[in-house]
Amino acid sequence: MADVKLSTQPYKGTRDFYPGDMRIQKWIFDQMRAVVEGYAYEPYDGPMLEPFELYAAKSGEELVNQQLYWMMDRGERKLAVRPEMTPTLARMVAGKIQELPRPIRWYSTPNLWRYERPQRGRLREHWQLNVDVLGGDPLLADAEILSVALSIMKRFQGEHLVQVRVNNRRLMDHFFMGLGLSAEVALKVTKALDARAKIGEEKYATWLAELGITASQREQMEGFFQSSFEQIELKFACEGTRELRALFSLLEESGFSKNQVVFDAQVLRGLDYYTGTVFEMYDTSPENNRAMFGGGRYDNLVGLFGKEKLPGVGFGMGDVTLRNFLETHGLLPSLGGGVDVLVALPKSEWRVHSETIAHQLRVAGMKVMTPLSIEGFGPQLKIASRHGARYAVLFGDAEWAEKKLIIKDLAAGVQEVVAAADLPAWFASRKVTNP
Amino acid sequence: MADVKLSTQPYKGTRDFYPGDMRIQKWIFDQMRAVVEGYAYEPYDGPMLEPFELYAAKSGEELVNQQLYWMMDRGERKLAVRPEMTPTLARMVAGKIQELPRPIRWYSTPNLWRYERPQRGRLREHWQLNVDVLGGDPLLADAEILSVALSIMKRFQGEHLVQVRVNNRRLMDHFFMGLGLSAEVALKVTKALDARAKIGEEKYATWLAELGITASQREQMEGFFQSSFEQIELKFACEGTRELRALFSLLEESGFSKNQVVFDAQVLRGLDYYTGTVFEMYDTSPENNRAMFGGGRYDNLVGLFGKEKLPGVGFGMGDVTLRNFLETHGLLPSLGGGVDVLVALPKSEWRVHSETIAHQLRVAGMKVMTPLSIEGFGPQLKIASRHGARYAVLFGDAEWAEKKLIIKDLAAGVQEVVAAADLPAWFASRKVTNP
Repeated sequence: MADVKLSTQPYKGTRDFYPGDMRIQKWIFDQMRAVVEGYAYEPYDGPMLEPFELYAAKSGEELVNQQLYWMMDRGERKLAVRPEMTPTLARMVAGKIQELPRPIRWYSTPNLWRYERPQRGRLREHWQLNVDVLGGDPLLADAEILSVALSIMKRFQGEHLVQVRVNNRRLMDHFFMGLGLSAEVALKVTKALDARAKIGEEKYATWLAELGITASQREQMEGFFQSSFEQIELKFACEGTRELRALFSLLEESGFSKNQVVFDAQVLRGLDYYTGTVFEMYDTSPENNRAMFGGGRYDNLVGLFGKEKLPGVGFGMGDVTLRNFLETHGLLPSLGGGVDVLVALPKSEWRVHSETIAHQLRVAGMKVMTPLSIEGFGPQLKIASRHGARYAVLFGDAEWAEKKLIIKDLAAGVQEVVAAADLPAWFASRKVTNP
Repeated sequence: MADVKLSTQPYKGTRDFYPGDMRIQKWIFDQMRAVVEGYAYEPYDGPMLEPFELYAAKSGEELVNQQLYWMMDRGERKLAVRPEMTPTLARMVAGKIQELPRPIRWYSTPNLWRYERPQRGRLREHWQLNVDVLGGDPLLADAEILSVALSIMKRFQGEHLVQVRVNNRRLMDHFFMGLGLSAEVALKVTKALDARAKIGEEKYATWLAELGITASQREQMEGFFQSSFEQIELKFACEGTRELRALFSLLEESGFSKNQVVFDAQVLRGLDYYTGTVFEMYDTSPENNRAMFGGGRYDNLVGLFGKEKLPGVGFGMGDVTLRNFLETHGLLPSLGGGVDVLVALPKSEWRVHSETIAHQLRVAGMKVMTPLSIEGFGPQLKIASRHGARYAVLFGDAEWAEKKLIIKDLAAGVQEVVAAADLPAWFASRKVTNP
């Protein structure tokens, strides 16, 4: 049909997961799921396309105007490919707010899309673990969410390589108000600060100047950012500093060191809906010093859908930065392949025997391939090793006549003859099971 | 910000998965994965948005012109939300065709989108298990793919409730050519036949008339559809009938009954790229008599991307029809909830004790919730049962002084006092583990 050949490349900034990558991906998310399910978080999911308005309401200008993938459907409804999960979560919680038992502890593993210039650690799509608590005492919830995030890093044996940097939006509001900024300008300054590391000092300064920030205001900001939490507590005492102090105490009580969880006034998060605690997790190693993921408290999001407010806190942990982190630090295990054993098919009239053997091993939980061609021992062994099988089960006329089978251990390079009836027991005793 | 409240409804024709639904969804896909991994199929995935051309090439007019969700990105590239997985599979296989060991056995569980009028069993998005083999002897591959599909139904204990109806595109080409139809008209007739059950006899007749099908041709078609496979074998002997005969023999040899796998000349499949075997699986119970899913052989898809052809065969099994089937026949198990045990938090100064207990049980693989509020026995027990916890671990001043804990079995309504140190052993002996 087509004379011009189609490209084999995926769309720019996206990934194909071939089986080897897919296994790593699955392993990563299995670890995360094990931790959050241990904390009794329940899985949920929503559609990948959502009404555009869902993000227009509270996600922030940059995301909506510059990063959203959107389209009109054939009925002229404006749809967005979801760029983040929290609005879907808030919509779903609001939809059943009367019946859901509280506190609501939910997690999800959505695929999310943003139009960005692809670079290391930043693609146009990524998979993300989203973990949220809604309801309950806000401080206990904030502390739990940070514990869950750190427990995940612990599961990956990387908790000593990361640091959680915490700030509070209420403290920032208090500070900006004292500086004489209106709420509107303060929000814009927040954006500039959030982008600062990415855009560089020069552009940051121009941005602030455009917002009408004076030299004196800028100086006060720098002073603020360089202050310790104790200095800020004294000078800017408010609800925000009290929340931070209480949160730090809870986390210390839980055994997290003062170096693992620190105050950082420059952590702001780009999303408009955060209202209290905000945080980011950093890889502290010099070669990879960067924010891996973050989250925060949003007290007004559920209220957008109805009368009832329900405060929440959560974080999103993306697979791209996390996998970079695990690779950089050698924390990915070597995972087994997709084939435990090949059962040979030496003659077409023995196909049923071959299938019966394969069936017995499958029932025992093994991954069993049969060749899709009739071939001799040599070619079949070649197929088995090319697919990374650990074992091959072979038989020819002589073996079949005596109801025996040859088991070849392809890793060790040795073989053994066993009675056909003893085959499942042979493998069971060697614990060859699915990884 | 917004005065008008946002809707809590998801986009029409899509679904929210609340935790209860999500658990069922996960259970369904876990069963399917266990079967296909047993056959040594390896997981893969590709991006949800693909270049529009990928579908324009071979998926068929109806899908591309009427059903595709698509958009322009900010760089004027035309992207489609993937409506089916096979083009992505072909693209990925073509991209590494030299290095992938054959036969290639792959599976995926993508979310797919089509703009359709939502109705029972047909939504705008669904999750689908995709299973494909590329390479190997085509007949052995076709037989294996059908065996895998039936093994999945067996895993769900529903194999006696379904029937696989098989046809062959080469036979249909041979028949249509004998009828004097050009390849182009034959393809259009195929579409009309594929839609027949959905649109009704009247519209079907009009459609055929518009294609210039004469009364005599239509009569011959009806005769063909009413013939047994044996009659067709005699009258229309060709490559297609020989392939069908060989396939039926292989499946009979593998133990599938003549009633489980049957010939059906009216099974055509709507996609343009099928070239040989095509099949659909039907629920045979009268109240639900409908196609559940299907697939077929495509010999020219990989060749669209380069010089090398690599024939393949596969099927897609969607979650919407499958779940309807499992529900109709009572084949869904009752699944546990997300909480095994609640560990109480009677006083704020005991938070660390509470956490330590929770941690011990989490390490043992249990799903453990702690309340996010300080409350007495009564309210805590209420929280535990509202969340569906099986057990609650409680303690007050008296218990704590003696290093004892109360374990309450909320299902049985009984309680027991144990030494704090014996708690993990108590649960281990009762095998309270994650389902």
